[in-house]
Amino acid sequence: MDFSSKLLENAVYEMSQLPGIGKRTALRLVLHLLKQPAEQTARLSGSLEQLRNTVRFCSNCYNISDTEICEICASPKRDRSLVCVVEDIRDVMAIENTSQFNGLYHVLGGKISPMEGVGPQELNIAPLIDKAKGGEIKELIFALSPTMEGDTTNFYMYKRLEGLDIRTSTIARGIAVGDELEYADEVTLGRSILNRIPFEGSLKS
Amino acid sequence: MDFSSKLLENAVYEMSQLPGIGKRTALRLVLHLLKQPAEQTARLSGSLEQLRNTVRFCSNCYNISDTEICEICASPKRDRSLVCVVEDIRDVMAIENTSQFNGLYHVLGGKISPMEGVGPQELNIAPLIDKAKGGEIKELIFALSPTMEGDTTNFYMYKRLEGLDIRTSTIARGIAVGDELEYADEVTLGRSILNRIPFEGSLKS
Ligand SMILES: [Zn+2]
Ligand SMILES: [Zn+2]
Repeated sequence: MDFSSKLLENAVYEMSQLPGIGKRTALRLVLHLLKQPAEQTARLSGSLEQLRNTVRFCSNCYNISDTEICEICASPKRDRSLVCVVEDIRDVMAIENTSQFNGLYHVLGGKISPMEGVGPQELNIAPLIDKAKGGEIKELIFALSPTMEGDTTNFYMYKRLEGLDIRTSTIARGIAVGDELEYADEVTLGRSILNRIPFEGSLKS
Repeated sequence: MDFSSKLLENAVYEMSQLPGIGKRTALRLVLHLLKQPAEQTARLSGSLEQLRNTVRFCSNCYNISDTEICEICASPKRDRSLVCVVEDIRDVMAIENTSQFNGLYHVLGGKISPMEGVGPQELNIAPLIDKAKGGEIKELIFALSPTMEGDTTNFYMYKRLEGLDIRTSTIARGIAVGDELEYADEVTLGRSILNRIPFEGSLKS
């Protein structure tokens, strides 16, 4: 692309660094901002910088939070004996949206993927095992996406938990195998949590 | 959507104000930035703010420019007797990409659209007529998108130019009627400029 303005070129380049945003889309977005009042650009860039520079993660569940302990972990209404293990915070939001779950979460930050160089050490698995050893947790729900990496991660956690008096379950596979959890509709996702099955059972299928 | 962080919610909201970016996409983009080094967010927001706050438009052709007169208008190599009239600066970029045009541009800033409340006064048509009266221009190429609004704008300019010794032409309609100019491929767009036809001729078709 031939830019008549270096400032425009820079802005389009930075915008096109976002995933799924090509050069043409980036140009369209940037030119849109130019047609809007300057305050809109200021609000966008200000909110991104503020988030990026002050972002915190709950020290208990690793969910994104503006405080040391997130609202879910801090709530006296939640069942602390039931913990739902998810890949990332979008899954927390998706499950919260169903209003079907009243326990706590544990955000792994991804799943084991040898192809992408993600091992157990890169994920929040060790703190999960530590929490499990604390004795307060009675059941862990593995709510990872039903992909090969998700299954590998489930199995790894399952082995690490052996010997502890904790039930493990996986969400019912109402979700098509290979699908990303966060794109499931609310009803399916909510039902798959209610109908969760013991993890051992899912190994035989 | 249920956000566990007000800062996250704000950033997602501002991102979703961009055209074609829904809440889910906005969330994906913002979470991506959180996984990248903070410098990437700083570069994105910095480049957007710098552009928005210091943007200028060439005082001759209304193309976006970091200087009072844009590079194209300032170049001694360009044919100043030939001016290509376009809707917006994306069209300048698209035509420059073809390397088929050696004249100057005039950016209208849109097209006449009574439906959207855009009249001739909202566009840079008056300065175009003034330039045309200056005597340096021998030919004006109307390179607007071949839509009803484009045709209306072409005809309005054509009438305003009556009595002046200036040839008017429109780009050849290799581009499908109703298509946006900027999405045309380079070959088609380049050829349609070389094969331009007198504007009067296009009225009969
Ligand atoms: Zn928490
Ligand atoms: Zn110019």
